[in-house]
Amino acid sequence: MTEIKILKNILAANQATAGRNRDLFGERGILALNLIASPGAGKTTLLERTIAGLSPALRFAVVEGDITGDHDARRIAAAGAAVVQVNTEGGCHLDAAMVGEALKEFALDAIDVIVIENVGNLVCPAEFDLGEAHKVVVLSTPEGDDKPAKYPLIFSEAGAVVINKVDMLAATDFDTTAAVRDIRRINRDAPIFQLSCRTGQGLGAWLQWLQSERAAHAKK
Amino acid sequence: MTEIKILKNILAANQATAGRNRDLFGERGILALNLIASPGAGKTTLLERTIAGLSPALRFAVVEGDITGDHDARRIAAAGAAVVQVNTEGGCHLDAAMVGEALKEFALDAIDVIVIENVGNLVCPAEFDLGEAHKVVVLSTPEGDDKPAKYPLIFSEAGAVVINKVDMLAATDFDTTAAVRDIRRINRDAPIFQLSCRTGQGLGAWLQWLQSERAAHAKK
Repeated sequence: MTEIKILKNILAANQATAGRNRDLFGERGILALNLIASPGAGKTTLLERTIAGLSPALRFAVVEGDITGDHDARRIAAAGAAVVQVNTEGGCHLDAAMVGEALKEFALDAIDVIVIENVGNLVCPAEFDLGEAHKVVVLSTPEGDDKPAKYPLIFSEAGAVVINKVDMLAATDFDTTAAVRDIRRINRDAPIFQLSCRTGQGLGAWLQWLQSERAAHAKK
Repeated sequence: MTEIKILKNILAANQATAGRNRDLFGERGILALNLIASPGAGKTTLLERTIAGLSPALRFAVVEGDITGDHDARRIAAAGAAVVQVNTEGGCHLDAAMVGEALKEFALDAIDVIVIENVGNLVCPAEFDLGEAHKVVVLSTPEGDDKPAKYPLIFSEAGAVVINKVDMLAATDFDTTAAVRDIRRINRDAPIFQLSCRTGQGLGAWLQWLQSERAAHAKK
């Protein structure tokens, strides 16, 4: 039983640190999102599209979580947002302490939205609160419509779901009706955005949601 | 440091159990493969194709690892192989003990090849030996060619790499040359199979490799 006790301690410590991150976001009126998906679902491309679509009206910062390297951070910097790369060196998820350290690198008074791009993994990141307002899960059509039923925790925890790569629907067996039905079974409320970061189709509704969430979190 | 010590104990215990699984495979002349990929890369479809392509000359059994549900196990049973479903109930990988328990359910004397389909995750399964002869990693083209550089451990540990969904290359930005180059940087020897489980293109070389590996592991 030792492992279980230790895991509880880790999660409790993480929760306390996440609370401090959340306070920091709240004090500054920053909307913080925790972006979670399988490798290759399109997290970074969604971020590039989002920054391009809402800058400079909204000022973005990104915490890039990767096991190794700075490939995605360079893409985000090129898109014009402030970015800090966090390398987990093998770790399968970001934790709140890693995010807390990254936040020290930003000029928080000049930021409206912080997106934390988690390590590509549909399993482990679901268990770690980072202090975000919402977890946003991205599912891409080539992955298959069975993923909400097979990875229910992250879909039940999501504050928004993005179904990406709808331009590839014809080349896949993805059944959107089945995917949406399975998401709704475990998550009644989260908005579900069907879009293509490649063609731009459906991006407007996502950008509108993000703007309205930012307005709801801004300092009164 | 407590967590690290505990993790080492877990990995050491896992290694001992994996050794027992490996002995069991060796005594029976069974080829055991540990199939690892992101969610939706096509592990189960590759298995369906492989069973269809090599049965009844080779007799297959499959250990299906999933967080929850038996969706994939039902597909494998329909394909005609013996199958045991292991639900990790939230766990992000299979360990050797789970596989050891599953092996008790099979008539091992009537099996030539056991494929262990791991939980969909490119990160955590890489760290846990299950007693397999080879880890086989499946990368699908819609995930992007940057995955070997971003998830190096699993690609460095792989005894074979399958690049799946080559029928979708035209609909993606996947650069096969770049992906193969990045795999070769961390893994000089593993065969790399470029194929489409949908169209069947390229499957022959994969099936041949599996047959020759089976022959190498069969009881003399």
